[in-house]
Amino acid sequence: MDEKINLAHGDGGVDTQGLIRNLFYQYFDEPLSNSMPDSFVFEAGQHKLAFTTDSFVVKPLFFRGGNIGKLAVCGTINDLATAGARPLFLSAGFIIEEGFSMEKLHLIAKSMSDICQETGAKIVTGDTKVVERGNVDGLFINTSGIGIVSDNYHPQQAEPGDEIIITGGIGEHGTSILLARYDLGMETKLTSDCAPMSFLINGLGEHLKHVKLMKDPTRGGIATSLNEIAAEQALEVELNEKAIPVKSEVDAIGDILGIDPLYLASEGRMLIVAEKGWGEKMLHQIKALDYCGEAQIIGRFTSGHQGMVSMKTLIGGKRIVPILEGQMLPRIC
Amino acid sequence: MDEKINLAHGDGGVDTQGLIRNLFYQYFDEPLSNSMPDSFVFEAGQHKLAFTTDSFVVKPLFFRGGNIGKLAVCGTINDLATAGARPLFLSAGFIIEEGFSMEKLHLIAKSMSDICQETGAKIVTGDTKVVERGNVDGLFINTSGIGIVSDNYHPQQAEPGDEIIITGGIGEHGTSILLARYDLGMETKLTSDCAPMSFLINGLGEHLKHVKLMKDPTRGGIATSLNEIAAEQALEVELNEKAIPVKSEVDAIGDILGIDPLYLASEGRMLIVAEKGWGEKMLHQIKALDYCGEAQIIGRFTSGHQGMVSMKTLIGGKRIVPILEGQMLPRIC
Repeated sequence: MDEKINLAHGDGGVDTQGLIRNLFYQYFDEPLSNSMPDSFVFEAGQHKLAFTTDSFVVKPLFFRGGNIGKLAVCGTINDLATAGARPLFLSAGFIIEEGFSMEKLHLIAKSMSDICQETGAKIVTGDTKVVERGNVDGLFINTSGIGIVSDNYHPQQAEPGDEIIITGGIGEHGTSILLARYDLGMETKLTSDCAPMSFLINGLGEHLKHVKLMKDPTRGGIATSLNEIAAEQALEVELNEKAIPVKSEVDAIGDILGIDPLYLASEGRMLIVAEKGWGEKMLHQIKALDYCGEAQIIGRFTSGHQGMVSMKTLIGGKRIVPILEGQMLPRIC
Repeated sequence: MDEKINLAHGDGGVDTQGLIRNLFYQYFDEPLSNSMPDSFVFEAGQHKLAFTTDSFVVKPLFFRGGNIGKLAVCGTINDLATAGARPLFLSAGFIIEEGFSMEKLHLIAKSMSDICQETGAKIVTGDTKVVERGNVDGLFINTSGIGIVSDNYHPQQAEPGDEIIITGGIGEHGTSILLARYDLGMETKLTSDCAPMSFLINGLGEHLKHVKLMKDPTRGGIATSLNEIAAEQALEVELNEKAIPVKSEVDAIGDILGIDPLYLASEGRMLIVAEKGWGEKMLHQIKALDYCGEAQIIGRFTSGHQGMVSMKTLIGGKRIVPILEGQMLPRIC
């Protein structure tokens, strides 16, 4: 029987990884390592360039703290940042439903432009397709990007004792989407954390030499990202629950909907692996950067169980943080 | 009143250009010239790289001679070729409808891989999104690409007397889509011309120095592409109807549906502007290349009416070939 695609194939978790490994890697050029980097890095003259792509299907298109346009540009810039790259050039591909509001399209394009001005990225090529009413849900955007990799960044294998920093509160994007999508009868000022992380590259300066890897915890939240990292590095990640910055609204809405904030997406946060002993120094510098005031060291690598994420809980126990299985939140980005 | 997007905004003609100029160029980085190149070219070390993007929403997904995957990879490779570039790296972004056939996805990915192997392009980064049933029509694909520009290619302003070559029969992709979409009760072996044009770059060799510009006549056909070229170059394009290669099936189906083949899309053809006096030499070389056996010199530039495309007709008259206005064929690519 012909197997079918289901929503879990798009949730960024086990099923997405399965689809990529079992289908796309059969045909496309599998990366040399077992990891699936968000950006591909190649040599160009004396420099290294990074190349990445993302399609955005977020629902609804407008949410507190952003819209699909801001999300697309930030998402692509952040994927470049995970490779230690500042953005140079972006492409923008629009698939628009017949009857879509021109006024909304202006607002969305303006948001994209605002982030470009903030970061120095330039949208240099694009494409516009229009499909008949009912054949696409409003608007989808693809942004691809080319960035220049910092000479200071040399990703390395993590080792026991290396420290894990998150640049701010977790799950605020995911929670904002839930608030925009469902009427939870709750008053809150919470907004999406959607923001560009490219300034980290210059902001970390020489400290970037002591960053071993970076990952933006989008679909599936930090739990999913850290499980991927633990598997790739063949180490255990040990989180310290007390240190993880979670806004009370994120906790509360997670409680109502039965979703652990560890699995809720961020769109303006970075997980940074700092070389053993460099965490505190780096944290001090990161906290002074835009969007990073709430940064914390949330855990470290151990040689315990390879590929496992564990967490020291508030009450002093230890629990496993498993990888996401089955679809939780479709169209979060 | 809030203006709405309509299908004509996506047809590649007057309305698409209006949307790009009046909306996107307000916010994004407008190219320095008035032209809208399919690829953006930038310096990287001693080389020039080209960067392009395209989203594909073709309906149906499978047609004679190809499918959306082949179309996507060829389309992006051909956009790079218009900038004189061989493809290096491609990205692939999939937006898939819940319930989509895994078997079809395999066929589509395999087609993409086949064209990559043929051309040396590599798919190095990707993204997969799944949306709920009814929120996307099956599958949309975005492919972005980075190519390396040939040292032999230096686009130049066209001049009167410069010659226009088409590398093969026109409108075969558009006609194949119409055949797949509508039951016209017609038996034919016609297939889409969908093919990669990257081999032209090496194939033209030193002759590339005498190519002034290239354009792939996709949405809106050669009529639309040549109107854009005539406007950009501020010259008249004079076509010779007798020389334009049109298969009899393309003519016949155009007749039935009332569509002039000049407006039907090709996805494996290139319009090449050859320096005055170089057309015949170049044509000889082009006809020996794959997919180019039917190449012809179909017209030339004159200093007549700036921005106009005219055609010497079969019966010896002269008529204007206007730019497409209003949507004709949605979702042809």
